[in-house]
Amino acid sequence: MAKQLPEYAIIVAGGSGSRMQHDLPKQFIQVAGKPILMHTIEQFYNYNPTIRLIVVLPKEQLDTWRELCKQHAFKVFHMTVPGGATRFGSVKNGLGAVMGDGLVAVHDGVRPFVETETIKRAFETAATYGSAVVAVSPKDSIRELTADGSIAVLRANYKLVQTPQIFSAAILHKAYEQPEQEYFTDDASVVESIGEKIMLVEGSYRNIKITTPEDLILAEAFATSV
Amino acid sequence: MAKQLPEYAIIVAGGSGSRMQHDLPKQFIQVAGKPILMHTIEQFYNYNPTIRLIVVLPKEQLDTWRELCKQHAFKVFHMTVPGGATRFGSVKNGLGAVMGDGLVAVHDGVRPFVETETIKRAFETAATYGSAVVAVSPKDSIRELTADGSIAVLRANYKLVQTPQIFSAAILHKAYEQPEQEYFTDDASVVESIGEKIMLVEGSYRNIKITTPEDLILAEAFATSV
Repeated sequence: MAKQLPEYAIIVAGGSGSRMQHDLPKQFIQVAGKPILMHTIEQFYNYNPTIRLIVVLPKEQLDTWRELCKQHAFKVFHMTVPGGATRFGSVKNGLGAVMGDGLVAVHDGVRPFVETETIKRAFETAATYGSAVVAVSPKDSIRELTADGSIAVLRANYKLVQTPQIFSAAILHKAYEQPEQEYFTDDASVVESIGEKIMLVEGSYRNIKITTPEDLILAEAFATSV
Repeated sequence: MAKQLPEYAIIVAGGSGSRMQHDLPKQFIQVAGKPILMHTIEQFYNYNPTIRLIVVLPKEQLDTWRELCKQHAFKVFHMTVPGGATRFGSVKNGLGAVMGDGLVAVHDGVRPFVETETIKRAFETAATYGSAVVAVSPKDSIRELTADGSIAVLRANYKLVQTPQIFSAAILHKAYEQPEQEYFTDDASVVESIGEKIMLVEGSYRNIKITTPEDLILAEAFATSV
């Protein structure tokens, strides 16, 4: 029965390219001959060809995106929504296109290597528990910064959070009605702050967020080595 | 005056290759035509050609290593020491070759992309403060596991620890005299447990630890794209 809920994916692509030392916004940089954002969208389409895709882009990039879709004959059906000043604002704008009941995945536009298997498991978990946040265990030791330095903490007690982060539409709408806080670094922290429990789902180390020039090298290697 | 202290590097390579799905131990896998461990050793040699290099390898790999050095005409002077049952044991065995005063860097054999600039800054910091541990800020949101689930924590309060981790020889000797504990995941946690302060030094996202097949793809891309 849970499988009957409509599924949405809000793909948030707000990058300007500054950290990437590139003249293109990072979501438009080509990997294996195609803009990163198209790879990302296709993974959700591959998981479920009837998923309702909402792509959030900075307003001034919408024309470029349309042009790129034409150039690449990109046919995956999706709507576009102009982004906000922050990631919080962008997700909120994307949520405006989610009407009625359902499950809503929020995903970074520059995480093109998310496996359809991970998306599937996350939607199943969210259908049961109302939330599902993809995360992996840290490979490195972790230190916590303190007033006078830093201390070792047990890395087994921590998880590094990725996307997708999936919630029931009602919960996500309610969470994004509150004012933005500085400690909102992802959707889980937004949803948690209204008292909802977060369920974690195991992710994969391939599901990288392409942020730096190093990541771009890895992305090209991933995309061409399968 | 601090610059007069002899400098050591204990390069710890204990891998068996199991997580790598490879028949070679990961430190012997070739990247850009050369075993990973040779790249790593060369970075320390490039930083300081008179650094005292101690390479710790599982006993049963010592013959293979000698053979590889011959095949690749690898001439960087270093001594080899058989490893222990755990990383703690391996570092302790390596420390056995450190006589007298000095600064001792401990470094993962499978972190071949550490920049000489990072090694330099870490030795300078250790010369002043007695310790220097290379670390980077996490790019992902972090959640802490709790008895009944998990909670968001402020990622700005955390650092992911890399190597090298550099200490004065006296401190490191003293730290490694204590019995091994389960929460010792790196040298900083060992040294900290005898009451010493740890200084952090900024690392780089290129300084990856090659652990999984994904890392190997990235390593090949890094090595061939400079």
